[in-house]
Amino acid sequence: MSILFDRIALVGIGLIGSSLVRVVRRDGLARHVAVAARTQATLDKAVTLGLADSVSLDPAEAARDADLVVIATPLGAYAQVAEAIAPALKRGAIVTDVGSVKGSAIADLAPRLPGHVHLVPGHPVAGTEHSGPEAGFPELFQNRWTILTPAKDCDAAAVERVAELWRRCGSRIEIMDAEHHDKVLAITSHLPHLIAYTIVGTVTDLEQATQREVIKFAASGFRDFTRIAASDPVMWRDVFLTNREAVLEMLGRLTEDLARLQRAIRWGEGEVLQDLFTRTRAIRRGIIDAGQA
Amino acid sequence: MSILFDRIALVGIGLIGSSLVRVVRRDGLARHVAVAARTQATLDKAVTLGLADSVSLDPAEAARDADLVVIATPLGAYAQVAEAIAPALKRGAIVTDVGSVKGSAIADLAPRLPGHVHLVPGHPVAGTEHSGPEAGFPELFQNRWTILTPAKDCDAAAVERVAELWRRCGSRIEIMDAEHHDKVLAITSHLPHLIAYTIVGTVTDLEQATQREVIKFAASGFRDFTRIAASDPVMWRDVFLTNREAVLEMLGRLTEDLARLQRAIRWGEGEVLQDLFTRTRAIRRGIIDAGQA
Repeated sequence: MSILFDRIALVGIGLIGSSLVRVVRRDGLARHVAVAARTQATLDKAVTLGLADSVSLDPAEAARDADLVVIATPLGAYAQVAEAIAPALKRGAIVTDVGSVKGSAIADLAPRLPGHVHLVPGHPVAGTEHSGPEAGFPELFQNRWTILTPAKDCDAAAVERVAELWRRCGSRIEIMDAEHHDKVLAITSHLPHLIAYTIVGTVTDLEQATQREVIKFAASGFRDFTRIAASDPVMWRDVFLTNREAVLEMLGRLTEDLARLQRAIRWGEGEVLQDLFTRTRAIRRGIIDAGQA
Repeated sequence: MSILFDRIALVGIGLIGSSLVRVVRRDGLARHVAVAARTQATLDKAVTLGLADSVSLDPAEAARDADLVVIATPLGAYAQVAEAIAPALKRGAIVTDVGSVKGSAIADLAPRLPGHVHLVPGHPVAGTEHSGPEAGFPELFQNRWTILTPAKDCDAAAVERVAELWRRCGSRIEIMDAEHHDKVLAITSHLPHLIAYTIVGTVTDLEQATQREVIKFAASGFRDFTRIAASDPVMWRDVFLTNREAVLEMLGRLTEDLARLQRAIRWGEGEVLQDLFTRTRAIRRGIIDAGQA
């Protein structure tokens, strides 16, 4: 493997950031990896895990002289990060991110960055329910999609350099419009997480004895929901706050569909249920065929 | 391993029935396994897979002289099966089942069976999204719970013999009241399935282009839902129709909780979201501690 960037700065080093850095360091994709985080404890972990050549509590210090800055914090911190790094960015630097909502990422970053840098927003569609720098692993992006949502007038060479970094992580690349990204992800990712959080939350309100049994007999169905609902709370809070319109739109559709099923159950309309349950099997086959199962 | 029953009859030989028979045959737990199914095609598969010593389209023929009859059809067929086998059952035979709803199982079976047999309703809390005799495998019940819901006056020896069969499958045994079972399973299993079916169904109503992208980017969250929503349509139709009260009750709670989150998203109440998302992580830890993750 050959070097892609002289200096890469990571602002935030959780599951995604640390997985990316693991690939960068394993394959020598950068000469220097600078890491910024909000707490000294996280920086200490990054050093212990061998993830950083230099660390700083100041994003600007990490971003100074970087060829590529990767913002990998929760979405709610983007505006502040952009303001902090803006004066330190060198001419021609590329700024990218890994956030799950692209509209708000662009709205928070673009107006705060100097005109002499290239903003290439990105979203590796991959993750686990674990968080923090110790949760990362280099295979996380293997065979997964990374979606890039650059502005129409963005420098094509900058987009290609970011794409190549993700390809080196084993990722497949898709370029799309930020608004469209947010709509698709609202249904594939944000809504499933919201539902999983809700149903697991509903259980936490049951009486203690029942709750213990729910945990005991979690094997069929509920278990998968608890895994999803164990995902990082702050990251997901920010996803719902920043992709509000698309999530509310999809949630509205879901609520209507749920009401129809509720009615079918109440009135014993077996054919409504069976019809739906048969249609949904086809979607699963599509996902298996698409190699994403 | 030693023989537990001379003759076991399986009425229905799908995922659960065939997995059970695989253990029975592997470990020689019965001298004769008789299988009844609704279609000749299924019986042919059972023979090809080496699952049966004798097969029949007539449940009574399979159940005749059986020491244990295992009803493993969808719940909607129970009343009919009970009526069919009742005249053929020998004195002291044990009748059990594997259905996911115990109240309706008892209501459909108990009044139709002769007084000289022992009814020991059972539910192995295990499964996959695959169905049919070819989908079974002997490890399915390993480290999973099997819940038995016998009536208070049920013969203790009969209950123990059924329990021992499931223990031989690697299952842990829990005895509980049928009504309580149905309430706990409504939240751990039935509601998650209903939600997964709903959300995947919502996707099938999206325009074709978006639907293709949803399949493409299924990786985070949605993928798990599609797996659940690929489960057997007839079996699940019957679960919702037979456990109506408990499912509607839990669905009501879920809908309220979902409305609260919807409001929090609309009004940007980040702390409501973060609080919930933090609480749900604890439930996941409970499941990991309980060895059911």
